[in-house]
Amino acid sequence: MTHATSQPCGEFMPSPRLLLGPGPSLVHPRVLRAMAAPLLGHLDPAFLQLMNEIQTMLRSVFRTDNRFTIALSGTGSAGMEALLVNLVEPGDAVIVGVNGVFGSRMATVVERCGGTPIRLEAPWGRIIEPDDVKAALARSGPVKAVALVHAETSTGAWQPLEPIGALCREYGALFIVDAVTSLAGLPLKVDAWGIDACYSGTQKCLSCPPGLAPLTLNERALAAIRRRATACRSWYLDLSLIADYWEEGTRAYHHTAPISMLYGLREALRLVAEEGLEARFARHRLHSQALGAGLEALGLRPFAQEGHRLPSLTCATLPAGLDDAAVRTALLQRFQIEIGGGLGPLRGRVWRIGLMGESAQRSHVLTLLAALEELALEQGGPAQPGTALAAAARVYAGCGEPAPSTRTSGEREKACS
Amino acid sequence: MTHATSQPCGEFMPSPRLLLGPGPSLVHPRVLRAMAAPLLGHLDPAFLQLMNEIQTMLRSVFRTDNRFTIALSGTGSAGMEALLVNLVEPGDAVIVGVNGVFGSRMATVVERCGGTPIRLEAPWGRIIEPDDVKAALARSGPVKAVALVHAETSTGAWQPLEPIGALCREYGALFIVDAVTSLAGLPLKVDAWGIDACYSGTQKCLSCPPGLAPLTLNERALAAIRRRATACRSWYLDLSLIADYWEEGTRAYHHTAPISMLYGLREALRLVAEEGLEARFARHRLHSQALGAGLEALGLRPFAQEGHRLPSLTCATLPAGLDDAAVRTALLQRFQIEIGGGLGPLRGRVWRIGLMGESAQRSHVLTLLAALEELALEQGGPAQPGTALAAAARVYAGCGEPAPSTRTSGEREKACS
Repeated sequence: MTHATSQPCGEFMPSPRLLLGPGPSLVHPRVLRAMAAPLLGHLDPAFLQLMNEIQTMLRSVFRTDNRFTIALSGTGSAGMEALLVNLVEPGDAVIVGVNGVFGSRMATVVERCGGTPIRLEAPWGRIIEPDDVKAALARSGPVKAVALVHAETSTGAWQPLEPIGALCREYGALFIVDAVTSLAGLPLKVDAWGIDACYSGTQKCLSCPPGLAPLTLNERALAAIRRRATACRSWYLDLSLIADYWEEGTRAYHHTAPISMLYGLREALRLVAEEGLEARFARHRLHSQALGAGLEALGLRPFAQEGHRLPSLTCATLPAGLDDAAVRTALLQRFQIEIGGGLGPLRGRVWRIGLMGESAQRSHVLTLLAALEELALEQGGPAQPGTALAAAARVYAGCGEPAPSTRTSGEREKACS
Repeated sequence: MTHATSQPCGEFMPSPRLLLGPGPSLVHPRVLRAMAAPLLGHLDPAFLQLMNEIQTMLRSVFRTDNRFTIALSGTGSAGMEALLVNLVEPGDAVIVGVNGVFGSRMATVVERCGGTPIRLEAPWGRIIEPDDVKAALARSGPVKAVALVHAETSTGAWQPLEPIGALCREYGALFIVDAVTSLAGLPLKVDAWGIDACYSGTQKCLSCPPGLAPLTLNERALAAIRRRATACRSWYLDLSLIADYWEEGTRAYHHTAPISMLYGLREALRLVAEEGLEARFARHRLHSQALGAGLEALGLRPFAQEGHRLPSLTCATLPAGLDDAAVRTALLQRFQIEIGGGLGPLRGRVWRIGLMGESAQRSHVLTLLAALEELALEQGGPAQPGTALAAAARVYAGCGEPAPSTRTSGEREKACS
């Protein structure tokens, strides 16, 4: 093959970035290397074996025995749409917790599916109270499902799910959960909590590039799909067709799987398994506490309700006088650090800092705090060099507040000796 | 970060495969390397620049000036669904050419969108005659669109499109084209042929891994979307929302783009630009002719209508007595070569051999033919060692039949001297 010499644009050489926004998170070099392996066909026995392995590891991360546990060929939002378009038939009512962007998006998607969302609202940053879910179920009449966001990426709040599963069973509703920013970053127990259908994305706490949506459905959810009176409105996201490709006995062609992305996901799941879920959750907690302490020293208060702050994503309220856009631009241009701004009504009012998967590391927390100190000083803020770093260091040393409980006693002993 | 030593499965080391099936095709090492680059955020200015570059290069491959030319976050089938779910409103009639699996899939998707497909059928392997399209338009009353598959991957036939665009304008219908197996492998002129909306996939003649659907819409198609009386039934594939992310002035967050896949697509498009479209088309023609000559020497006759055989995908009828499954299994296990079997009614009756993008190389054609000769001999077939190779060599030498016209006179002179 000959190639002419003319090139429309040069080789792509992305600047290194410290990704501490709401996703994508940093990706381990092993995952990047896995994606660069030569391709297998999507019906090659060796590739089908890889799909089996991904399913096994995903079940362990979701804490489920659900046979139908797969990685959908689309991003987390495709996972949301896939569950809703399969489970919601035209005319179905669905109670949707709306306390941020992603709950609101779920309600929109229910409408697009022809369903009727019953919006159960709470102020942004606060949780949907389980008692309010119960009251909504009691007054709504029959609903097809209750849909909640476990980790609301727009506000930094985590939603208690454990009491909801039993409520849903009591009222004959399915329980659908968005675990995009929680899976593999904080405890999530699909089977134990009675979650019937759950989806996530790869680019958050799994630390894989975006492009796949892990999802899982139990028999109750699959039975609802089988009972549908109408065909699923989507062909690409029709889970009964997709199941025939992922199911070991059938392996019927539906669409060509995104092979390289699945290579990457397999390696990312191997890293999760090697670390262990409990250790991974503890790591996320520790670094978010150190970050939170540092931010408070700079005058940035946590936005979400106390006791419900996400370890994977910190949403912090900006102090008066701090210029959102100027500081984030300087962070990116001078320090190569990405953090996220506020969405919707929180635009200009908060920052969203993700410490997810590979991004949740001590060195990254310290690097960010040092940069923020320097920029705050330049803006005439109250910070002294080292203030935020010292606050984080006290958390890491396990000697100060808050929350030495996030470390094992052995770690603490070692750190304070 | 510490990782425990337990591993649920080992490192993934895929065997090398010569991918000569209906896709994925072989991927150039430069594309694999590009995908392994560290990630940028999906709103990072450097990433937005990369999106601009992809749009520019895609326009050149589609031969269009359409501003709305993007890569959708899903596989080629998602591209099909995206165009149909945006352009077809409930109640709309759409004439769909059905002469293989993918035309049939389009008709199904039209139904899922609430539209009414008017199936214009032809026997598998034959084209949809432009006169039949005209007659269907004349007798159908108002239809929203005519939808045709340019390169039917299930039969190996290419569909003439040039006369259809003017017909669609005459009857006030949109012209929608599936170019999954044609884009960058055979001539396709979106603007010149009056195609209003066109989609493709990355894993065919572009030689990028599967996972993205390049697509383009002109002003006529965008106006139809703006005129919709109902909201698009899909949120994930809603092109009016996706446009706000790809549009330089807005860049509104919709979903997190599959960053690494877009790195890969940019590099694949650079390779296309370096080779040049005309040279690339000629390469596809040459190697498919050599392959076809070799296959005929082994008794495998082309399935598709004469004069309409795809250069990117050869569909060949198996001679009596040749065991489809046994030979394809041996090809994969002993020779590491993947080719495709027949779909639907052609299962066990044909093979589908793709020479797309990086897979369209002389060495690959010769390697496949040598393996087939050997396996045919083992099965007691009529082949003599070297028969198929000699037939291919005659094409490459430009001295025999068929079709020395696919080579430049300089090449031919050199080859026969």
